[in-house]
Amino acid sequence: MREQLLAAEKITAIEWRDGALYLLDQRRLPHERLWVRCATAPEVADAIRQMLVRGAPAIGVAAAYGFVLAARWHQAAGGDWQAALQADVRLLASARPTAVNLCWALSRMSERLQRLRPQDDLLAALEAEAVAIHQSDREANLTMAQSGLELIRRHQGSAQNFLTHCNAGALATGGFGTALGVLRAAHLDGLVEHVYVDETRPWLQGSRLTAWELVEDGIPTTLIVDSAAAHLMKERGISWVIVGADRIAANGDVINKIGTYQLAVTAMHHGARFMVVAPSSSIDMACEAGEDALLEERDASEVLDVAGQRIAARVQVFNPVFDVTPADLVDAIVTEKGVIERPDAEKMAQLMSRRHLH
Amino acid sequence: MREQLLAAEKITAIEWRDGALYLLDQRRLPHERLWVRCATAPEVADAIRQMLVRGAPAIGVAAAYGFVLAARWHQAAGGDWQAALQADVRLLASARPTAVNLCWALSRMSERLQRLRPQDDLLAALEAEAVAIHQSDREANLTMAQSGLELIRRHQGSAQNFLTHCNAGALATGGFGTALGVLRAAHLDGLVEHVYVDETRPWLQGSRLTAWELVEDGIPTTLIVDSAAAHLMKERGISWVIVGADRIAANGDVINKIGTYQLAVTAMHHGARFMVVAPSSSIDMACEAGEDALLEERDASEVLDVAGQRIAARVQVFNPVFDVTPADLVDAIVTEKGVIERPDAEKMAQLMSRRHLH
Repeated sequence: MREQLLAAEKITAIEWRDGALYLLDQRRLPHERLWVRCATAPEVADAIRQMLVRGAPAIGVAAAYGFVLAARWHQAAGGDWQAALQADVRLLASARPTAVNLCWALSRMSERLQRLRPQDDLLAALEAEAVAIHQSDREANLTMAQSGLELIRRHQGSAQNFLTHCNAGALATGGFGTALGVLRAAHLDGLVEHVYVDETRPWLQGSRLTAWELVEDGIPTTLIVDSAAAHLMKERGISWVIVGADRIAANGDVINKIGTYQLAVTAMHHGARFMVVAPSSSIDMACEAGEDALLEERDASEVLDVAGQRIAARVQVFNPVFDVTPADLVDAIVTEKGVIERPDAEKMAQLMSRRHLH
Repeated sequence: MREQLLAAEKITAIEWRDGALYLLDQRRLPHERLWVRCATAPEVADAIRQMLVRGAPAIGVAAAYGFVLAARWHQAAGGDWQAALQADVRLLASARPTAVNLCWALSRMSERLQRLRPQDDLLAALEAEAVAIHQSDREANLTMAQSGLELIRRHQGSAQNFLTHCNAGALATGGFGTALGVLRAAHLDGLVEHVYVDETRPWLQGSRLTAWELVEDGIPTTLIVDSAAAHLMKERGISWVIVGADRIAANGDVINKIGTYQLAVTAMHHGARFMVVAPSSSIDMACEAGEDALLEERDASEVLDVAGQRIAARVQVFNPVFDVTPADLVDAIVTEKGVIERPDAEKMAQLMSRRHLH
């Protein structure tokens, strides 16, 4: 399956070339494939804030490269460059508040910096660390895809219908995706009858990004509006809802795109299983429960306008872009360290005490 | 309350003037208030099909006037005009498949035609019947608003949060609304802390029409994306979800805008009460259960395009625009004939055996 998956890999959204970070602008997809070059940390922070790059793992990878760019810039400027570097790290860390991968990647880069010996080539070492973060995210995708596939097969060995929300694919990670990685593996293994995709308002990650990725891969895909999920489950039968995560708390609560919680409630009502696929870098053991996480609220214009046009009346908007799915609505959390069924604090602690595979 | 409600009435969407039907074009709202004149039945059928007029009760009223226009047209043409009239009636009846009010209004007009005596002025009698249908829908709104208000007050006498879906307001009826009529009465009575409105993809009746109506009335209103309803219920507390209906089956199952079912599942999970407000003309005793009703599916472009712009990838779409909420998820059905709590076939039959109040 690993070789099949690697052979099927088509889309990348993050590239590190000639000492600069190239990002596939996700605001323009699927209409236009525009690569944007970031040569400084503030440019990377801005790209994260503007959602040019999005998806928790992808944000982490981008931030790691942002760290390299910051170190290069400030070291060249001389003086107390490490203090200036810290300012850029704070800027990167604050670009989006919810995904924990951002801080995880920056901490890992900072630790690497601390471990440097005088004789080391600082920039080469930091660049190698960022590339390693990128590579290990890609490897984690491969591992999770296979674990998720095994889980699906264990419950039912024939082709079935799936539903996914938002985008947890190649565009959201350093590889070919978390939730979509599992769906890609299931497709290659003949277990996919059909994948339904929630359009995922307000940013339409589902209709713009996930639908595009799946159709590019030749997976039978149908788009629905977010509120049709319950009707779909009742009418067509969905075996698994599979989503990614922006952060997973120590008790197994899942913070993910707005609508994930509603989908989990709906899945439980219909007996559809609910799988969350995320690398361990999305697990925040310092966050005891979902309600402790800061949930980003974004601008009203994301709801009031579409494609630059005002669609709504003049009205106040509540635009939380993440929500919390309590662990007891989650059937399985799939990480590269292992799979937890019916997650709770104890199983989470056990999982996180294992060594990284990569 | 009746006088307060009448005094607060601001918006009308259907007018019969100088022997023609004028419709406020709901595709253009809230950006533009454009009235469209329909002088023939095919024009009315087209307006219904194109959703220039929408909302089950409003469609019924428009169809009644369409019947008058058809009778006038064909009678003037002479010959076997009643056969030609029937063709127009079929055209009107098939303009939208789900709302039962359409067929209900056309049947009532046909019956009036059958009852005519030779000495009656045919056109005057039909026009009077259509105006009566329009007026009784308006009266039904008033009655339901007061019954719904009593129900809310009985459960909790202080200000509370409400959530509504789609548009069941002045724009959807011959009066000031079914669900929104109740919310207007609750607001006038000091029971509204806040009304939250689902944007209601794909047609955005919530963000374009309901938000506009409520803001015009000075009711504290906040818009959310459809998938944020569960998060909203958890975070801010919603006492009642209040919606309209396109058809109610004999067992109390409710056919309404896509997303209503998902909202009912979500409401049950959070202990929010679920109220359906619809005139008895929306009740179809010939439809035994919700699954017997034909649920309209509309064009993929409604999901793929917004405001004339393509927003999604090239992908297949499942666009059911109605769903079925089983009676056991409904706390109350409010009609002008009375209120049913915990609806079932027996209570529905009892309600429908009562005489019309209007």
